[in-house]
Amino acid sequence: MKESWSSVDTLETNFRPLVVIELAKGTKEETIEWFTKRIVDKKANGGAQLLIKPLVTENGDENIYLVGASHLRLLLGAENVGLVKECNDNSMRAFTYSSRKTFKDFADDNQNFLTMSECQYIIKHELENLRAKDEKMIPGYPQAKLYPGKSIVRRLLTNGILVQIFPLHDREELKKLRHTWYGQVKIGYQPLDEIRCYFGETIALYFGFLEYFTFALIPMAVIGIPYYVFAWEDYDKYVMFATFNLLWSTVILEVWKRICAVMTYRWGTLLMKRQFEEPRPGFHGVLGINPVTGREEPVYSSIKRQLRIYLVSVPFVCLCLYFSLYVMMIYFDLEQWALDYHEENKSHFSNLMLYVPSIIYAVVIEIMNRIYRYAAEFLTSWENHRLESSYQNHLILKVLVFNFLNCFASLFYIAFVLFDMKLLRQSLATLLITSQILNQFAESLLPYWLQKRHMKKMKERMHSLKMDTDLSLVEQVNSEKEMGTYLGTFDDYLELFLQFGYVSLFSCVYPLAAVFAVLNNITEIYSDALKMCRVYKRPFAEPTANIGVWQLAFETMSVISVVTNCILIGMSPQVNALFPDSKMDLILTVALVEHLLLAIKFVMAFVIPDKPRDIQIKLAKLEFESLEALKQQQMKLAAESLKE
Amino acid sequence: MKESWSSVDTLETNFRPLVVIELAKGTKEETIEWFTKRIVDKKANGGAQLLIKPLVTENGDENIYLVGASHLRLLLGAENVGLVKECNDNSMRAFTYSSRKTFKDFADDNQNFLTMSECQYIIKHELENLRAKDEKMIPGYPQAKLYPGKSIVRRLLTNGILVQIFPLHDREELKKLRHTWYGQVKIGYQPLDEIRCYFGETIALYFGFLEYFTFALIPMAVIGIPYYVFAWEDYDKYVMFATFNLLWSTVILEVWKRICAVMTYRWGTLLMKRQFEEPRPGFHGVLGINPVTGREEPVYSSIKRQLRIYLVSVPFVCLCLYFSLYVMMIYFDLEQWALDYHEENKSHFSNLMLYVPSIIYAVVIEIMNRIYRYAAEFLTSWENHRLESSYQNHLILKVLVFNFLNCFASLFYIAFVLFDMKLLRQSLATLLITSQILNQFAESLLPYWLQKRHMKKMKERMHSLKMDTDLSLVEQVNSEKEMGTYLGTFDDYLELFLQFGYVSLFSCVYPLAAVFAVLNNITEIYSDALKMCRVYKRPFAEPTANIGVWQLAFETMSVISVVTNCILIGMSPQVNALFPDSKMDLILTVALVEHLLLAIKFVMAFVIPDKPRDIQIKLAKLEFESLEALKQQQMKLAAESLKE
Repeated sequence: MKESWSSVDTLETNFRPLVVIELAKGTKEETIEWFTKRIVDKKANGGAQLLIKPLVTENGDENIYLVGASHLRLLLGAENVGLVKECNDNSMRAFTYSSRKTFKDFADDNQNFLTMSECQYIIKHELENLRAKDEKMIPGYPQAKLYPGKSIVRRLLTNGILVQIFPLHDREELKKLRHTWYGQVKIGYQPLDEIRCYFGETIALYFGFLEYFTFALIPMAVIGIPYYVFAWEDYDKYVMFATFNLLWSTVILEVWKRICAVMTYRWGTLLMKRQFEEPRPGFHGVLGINPVTGREEPVYSSIKRQLRIYLVSVPFVCLCLYFSLYVMMIYFDLEQWALDYHEENKSHFSNLMLYVPSIIYAVVIEIMNRIYRYAAEFLTSWENHRLESSYQNHLILKVLVFNFLNCFASLFYIAFVLFDMKLLRQSLATLLITSQILNQFAESLLPYWLQKRHMKKMKERMHSLKMDTDLSLVEQVNSEKEMGTYLGTFDDYLELFLQFGYVSLFSCVYPLAAVFAVLNNITEIYSDALKMCRVYKRPFAEPTANIGVWQLAFETMSVISVVTNCILIGMSPQVNALFPDSKMDLILTVALVEHLLLAIKFVMAFVIPDKPRDIQIKLAKLEFESLEALKQQQMKLAAESLKE
Repeated sequence: MKESWSSVDTLETNFRPLVVIELAKGTKEETIEWFTKRIVDKKANGGAQLLIKPLVTENGDENIYLVGASHLRLLLGAENVGLVKECNDNSMRAFTYSSRKTFKDFADDNQNFLTMSECQYIIKHELENLRAKDEKMIPGYPQAKLYPGKSIVRRLLTNGILVQIFPLHDREELKKLRHTWYGQVKIGYQPLDEIRCYFGETIALYFGFLEYFTFALIPMAVIGIPYYVFAWEDYDKYVMFATFNLLWSTVILEVWKRICAVMTYRWGTLLMKRQFEEPRPGFHGVLGINPVTGREEPVYSSIKRQLRIYLVSVPFVCLCLYFSLYVMMIYFDLEQWALDYHEENKSHFSNLMLYVPSIIYAVVIEIMNRIYRYAAEFLTSWENHRLESSYQNHLILKVLVFNFLNCFASLFYIAFVLFDMKLLRQSLATLLITSQILNQFAESLLPYWLQKRHMKKMKERMHSLKMDTDLSLVEQVNSEKEMGTYLGTFDDYLELFLQFGYVSLFSCVYPLAAVFAVLNNITEIYSDALKMCRVYKRPFAEPTANIGVWQLAFETMSVISVVTNCILIGMSPQVNALFPDSKMDLILTVALVEHLLLAIKFVMAFVIPDKPRDIQIKLAKLEFESLEALKQQQMKLAAESLKE
């Protein structure tokens, strides 16, 4: 096998390992040969034209490969994925190899023009777009069928021949990043640009949102503190606080879009063209003709999928919702029992016991959320969506509906059925704080501790093998491949979404919620940063221009919170006292105020432009230039045609 | 001057007049010479490369010119404006001259490949894009300043040197169209494709919407009739009717988007790229650098405009709204007076008198709407918006707010302050029917009659001059140039919008409104068709892919009508009787139902896709192809670069 590597070996002097491919142990020789040949093969022959090198480990395993690429290849790949970079005139443009000289910091010998995460993203893209030509199956594995145009890597992954592909950490860079990010105790912004360079736009945008959201909560928290300290119970103060909160939440969500546009413009993703979406790895079906591409590929009847969704998934979700409500009723029984116990005993212990049901319920909610999460993933995957985006949308919808009900149903019940504001406040506080503690623990500290323990074991094993010098790359790969895989920002956004619910849905009852949210988010930034840098494998950078469906989710939550807060204020005894004669006037007033607030929200969302003026001008400028270029081209053509 | 025409004269055999340019009488010779030279000049020299011919009239006036273009020039122009045509494989593609052979019905000698209205649109586009090079002013008119890049035609228009530009009618085609459209008494669809060919997409889309909306109202009308015939007053029937109406109105607005997508895909405008928007003709400012184009052109400070909007326009609109409410109060005084009179006399005459205030008020409303319309146009024009789209948005917003209040304030007052359902029904009927009659009269019949009288005079004058043969073109131009100018679909959509308000806002009180709306719309189709074919000059075709801001306006109206109908039902004595003990329960139930309906509306709007599946697939296919083409190109480039 070594012979066929000659073409790579000549380039080995400037081979920089970027991505690790781990094949299953005992993968057949012919498969490896075929796969590596396809990777290094010329583009013209349908290859990826990348560099690949086996990792020579101490025990002679040959199932790990390092992938790299020549500088030129990466630049062409950057053009292929539509990377947008800054030009010398400070405008952002899609990178093309022919216009490379006009880009800032470009020099033919400057290997740092593309960041390492960009290079890794390019390699991932090229590997995923390595497609079968006339192979009917993966050599050596007759059951792994191929058809022209099928992504080879995806087939290898679904058949378990390919265990994983992941990008390598850059230890130097990571150390620097860690230092500026959370290494020093300081108050200030996160180094978002550096995070973006290292982890890519999706993750940087999450941290940007987390930071922005924390700052945005501070005014709410500051205004909320005196309500707690002075135990204000005046209705007008509550009304003011709630009104402020509702308008504020609209403003922050609108302003976020603008900030997001500024950031993603600077990063180039705002201008990036959407790529054509290929079927997701798990998609299967019978071979047919895709009506869009005209290619032969698996197709799956949309009716079958609809049937699966409406006859299985929807009933299942409803059942889960019912179960969640059932658990809630058990919680209320427990609550009643604790109250009775306290009434009987009136001891210090029984007072503490009052909090126990809420804490237990909070833990149960977290567990149910996590179990449901797996069920939702299984179901959505079974629905067999063709596109990753459609899969994600169905998954997010399922998870959001359940989590919303699971977390907030008891609070709604307490507020609008039991009318017990004291219990609501207590329940809200317990749920919020418990879930925050659980999350911080389950998300970062536990994996971190596991990781530490594992590393220690690894190190011991390494040392026992007496191989400690010059093996740093092998060591690095070996340790990184054992790290957990970061599954994307879904859970992190979900956590923020639920937190936003706790803060805004019942804000006028418990103004202190914002304070806890701020405190949690400050530590969350640190623990998430730790998680990214220390616990997980480096994730592939994923270019993105916005936070996607989460924007909509947060906006929906903010609309719902207008309704709940208006009702809460309407129910407060202080407001009731204002309308001693007629409950009707009270309700009509509340309804009027609610509609007014909703109308103001919509007008505000409509009036505040989604992009700041300077970004709008820059985008218009780019559009104008491309139209002008097109016109020039057509004019030239026209002049030629008319001359004939 | 005649000498310079040689280049045109040679082509005169196939000169087909398409567009008429009318210059002011007494325009200086040098100006005419310069302008016509710029029009016929080669593209390479900055001209429009069109053909132009003076119209020789009986009294020797030389201020009217006919513009045409060679077939090749029109094809190149079609590429320039981004026209989308059907290909031989039934897909829709942007026309390019180099790929002309792949288009359906294309042949080098087929002059009908482009419809006449498309040719006229191309010529208009080319004329408007005829730009000043180094001229500092229009020759002969030192006060008419020019700067490089300024549209010459727009400057000539704003300086009154150019009186008008309009496309010629095609008498043969028009006759055919008239026949299929409204010439025969038949029940069926309008010939929308023919209307589109003759008048362009904007107008065809209006007629398509009018027809669709009429069909969509039929179920409401059918369900509404028995309520009137049997005088049903059961609450459950009203609730059913209102619920049906509210959901139905959401469905029809969503389905319209799909129908619109199907139509505009067939017409090619769905795929047409947006052109870069030039400043609108009326825009003025001091010369500066446009940040988008980098060209020198008039700029106007955005702050100044904001000041004008917020310090003048907004207060003025508020004043108008106040005035409208004041007039409403006078109407209620009149109403009271008529009621008192009836009480006193109880005669047949006094019974009729009861309707008089409403009729007077309806007339006053119409007059106020029209006066306000002029004021709004003046103000919006004075706000000095740079782009036509921004001008239109501000104008539409101003007009919509005022018209909404003006038309519906009295109804809201009767319904929610006076609680007088009988008066509401009577007022609604009077307002609706009166405004429909007035509109039909003012919009079509009056102009038609004026036009007829004018034509008769013209004919008499012509005959008295004894020049009746061989002058048909001169006659046609002369008669058409005197016709009124169609000012766009604004007023037509506004009328439908207000009608939609009358039908949906109080639908549960007056189910018969839909019946009147349907009847009105059937005649409206005929009178609008008559207006387009007989009363006005032919308008330039205007490509468009949707009904724009009107979709939003109709959707907003449908949201408001959920609120009003829920309140109306909640107020009905039948529903009140259901909650004899507690008004509170009643109001809470109504509020709950309202929120549920609103939620269902939003979910429906979200779930129903805006484009039918086959259009989605076709669009995806086109996108895929263009991405593939790009990729192929990049692969080729990459292969070359890697070979080097």
